[in-house]
Amino acid sequence: MDAAITLVNLKGLVQVREVGQGRVAGGSMSELPIVPDAFLILDEGHIRDFGPMPSLPEQRGQVIDCSGRFVFPGWVDSHTHLVFARSREDEFVMKIEGATYQQIAAAGGGILNSARALASMSEDELFEVSVKRAWEILRTGTVAVEIKSGYGLAVQDELKMLRVARRIGRETPLIVKTTFLGAHAVPAGTTKAAYIDLVINDMMPAIAREGLADYVDVFCENGFFSPEESVRILEAGKKHGWRPRVHANQLGHSGGVNVGIQTGAASVDHLEHLNDDEINQLGGTDVMPTALPGAAFFLNLPYPPARRMIQAGLPVAIATDYNPGSAPSGNMLMNQSLACIGMRMTPAEVFNACTLNTAASLNMLDTHGSITRGKAASVIISKPMPSIAFGPYSFGSHWIEHVIADGKIIQ
Amino acid sequence: MDAAITLVNLKGLVQVREVGQGRVAGGSMSELPIVPDAFLILDEGHIRDFGPMPSLPEQRGQVIDCSGRFVFPGWVDSHTHLVFARSREDEFVMKIEGATYQQIAAAGGGILNSARALASMSEDELFEVSVKRAWEILRTGTVAVEIKSGYGLAVQDELKMLRVARRIGRETPLIVKTTFLGAHAVPAGTTKAAYIDLVINDMMPAIAREGLADYVDVFCENGFFSPEESVRILEAGKKHGWRPRVHANQLGHSGGVNVGIQTGAASVDHLEHLNDDEINQLGGTDVMPTALPGAAFFLNLPYPPARRMIQAGLPVAIATDYNPGSAPSGNMLMNQSLACIGMRMTPAEVFNACTLNTAASLNMLDTHGSITRGKAASVIISKPMPSIAFGPYSFGSHWIEHVIADGKIIQ
Repeated sequence: MDAAITLVNLKGLVQVREVGQGRVAGGSMSELPIVPDAFLILDEGHIRDFGPMPSLPEQRGQVIDCSGRFVFPGWVDSHTHLVFARSREDEFVMKIEGATYQQIAAAGGGILNSARALASMSEDELFEVSVKRAWEILRTGTVAVEIKSGYGLAVQDELKMLRVARRIGRETPLIVKTTFLGAHAVPAGTTKAAYIDLVINDMMPAIAREGLADYVDVFCENGFFSPEESVRILEAGKKHGWRPRVHANQLGHSGGVNVGIQTGAASVDHLEHLNDDEINQLGGTDVMPTALPGAAFFLNLPYPPARRMIQAGLPVAIATDYNPGSAPSGNMLMNQSLACIGMRMTPAEVFNACTLNTAASLNMLDTHGSITRGKAASVIISKPMPSIAFGPYSFGSHWIEHVIADGKIIQ
Repeated sequence: MDAAITLVNLKGLVQVREVGQGRVAGGSMSELPIVPDAFLILDEGHIRDFGPMPSLPEQRGQVIDCSGRFVFPGWVDSHTHLVFARSREDEFVMKIEGATYQQIAAAGGGILNSARALASMSEDELFEVSVKRAWEILRTGTVAVEIKSGYGLAVQDELKMLRVARRIGRETPLIVKTTFLGAHAVPAGTTKAAYIDLVINDMMPAIAREGLADYVDVFCENGFFSPEESVRILEAGKKHGWRPRVHANQLGHSGGVNVGIQTGAASVDHLEHLNDDEINQLGGTDVMPTALPGAAFFLNLPYPPARRMIQAGLPVAIATDYNPGSAPSGNMLMNQSLACIGMRMTPAEVFNACTLNTAASLNMLDTHGSITRGKAASVIISKPMPSIAFGPYSFGSHWIEHVIADGKIIQ
């Protein structure tokens, strides 16, 4: 925890909310409270005070002139797989060259490819390659992140992944929440039934013993885990105190949305395929619909129907899905542009989706997701720019000048 | 021109070609010659020598260890409008909120919006806002750029734009080629016929007198300039020694491709709509088909049919179209990712498209577009990465560590 920092002459202080404010739904998603010509004081790792410049009480500690710049709360990325052994651009090229999924699988591709590479790596090596990605996303403004297991697919390797995720939380300014996703794929050499037993009877108790997980997840998709299998796995996870999150409806109407509702999940993620029935069923629940625009973009899938969700009164969260197979980017700025361009969300909606709503889905509203007195000193200072919309509009640009995470200046 | 720089221990030196090698077409677009474990010596602003590390003759001047890094020739961006007065993210938000083109025009939007803002700015002010964009694209690896006029639409303002473009070429390490695009839109308060006369009889001679243009361009699109009008304008430009470039087939089959062939254009650009007849007609010409994936992406248009072009034996070039209305990004890295993901080009094809082929379309093969002895000392050093495909695959990332433009280290 560093000394005090006073930001002065802000062009705008964005996402200013009262303590205890919850997620933002439907008609309110365009409401993004901004204090113009503002100051912000961070002290002892928390937001101490803010307001219009003329009412600045005193400059404390380091003073940063933010003339022409906007200050945002740091992004919360609620869905990543950023602990992995190596990138998979070879499969990307094979797909462009016309290889089928079968050919890629035969060449050792897919999730099992990641699992094989991860199995051959020590925990320290896995930490070294993964912590670089943590610093990389810090520099694009992510201050809190969810990280899933699921490239282990064996007891020791799932433990290894989650230990690495916890260590990233200890050794960087990133706040890390972990999710056990043993049910990501079925490894070779076993049956699905036997593997599900292993997940429930061996992996879960071992992970619970070390306190390595905050959530439990399952890849509920045709050809992977059925709704019935998914419910069984998630209910078993709940017994360890882990609230479910669900990979749902990426490749089709998998039943994953209903699984999420039925098990009281914190979120249902992907939603590239989502019909009006499913949208209606999500209404009135506190399951957070979470779009992963980077995955839809990278795979040339249709984007989730964000406008229909918002119109129906649902909140929408946006996360990166950072992983080596289907979303090799942990850059929230890029995902914000994709959400505006591809999903036709407004910049204001997108900023709500990446802050309050992702924080809500990770039960972090007490500390993150808005500029609120007492919350963590985790904020983003933009480069000089004419408006907040300029960020997502200038796609592919790095429009951040500084990130302050947990009171520490990252860049 | 700085002192010598020796790059050692390169993981790979990319796009190594013999002197005089031309553009790359069709079946050869996947050939990207790479020297592994290489060195590169830059001296007096030129590429002096390169080869495998064991044959390194001597280290000259500053030595940079490029272990784990690839070195590319700097990108050549052959289509931009980067001299403009201000960004237009307000229209971007209006469109997302459902505004029609009529409503945006009524609110003062579109090209005429840019023209109004530019008219009210002094030449020095216009230079100050534009030169920042020049430095921004240098940092993403662009070392040579084409810049069009076309937000002036009046004699003095077109001159102002082109003077600013020339000044950017003088006052930054960027190599700048300029294109007169008076026929970008018809300003208010005049007829199209009268405006075309102004373009030909007043603008062109004034621009020629000051030597401000290298090329002439026209927006050949339904509702803007017809094929007949386009040919008349381009032929008039040719009399001043300016080879044509053509905005063709963005919004429909505009006839722009045929205009380009008929007038012996250096390039036909956009090509979101392109049928097999037009592809066949381009075969055997030296008109460079140029895709602008950022514009298709930002406007949610179909991408140009790159695979069909390559299959038919055509070369393909890729440029950014950097402009405030339809492509607010001058980032070639982003456009490379869009070309791989959206247009299904391989990374090797994309790197050819952004170096040799754009350089060919700007008649710059003597100095740019490849790693060749005697060419300009304008190269990109990547961050450590496993392969060249990692670049476009890791979309939205800034995978460049240093850019050397004209012998000067930019970052």
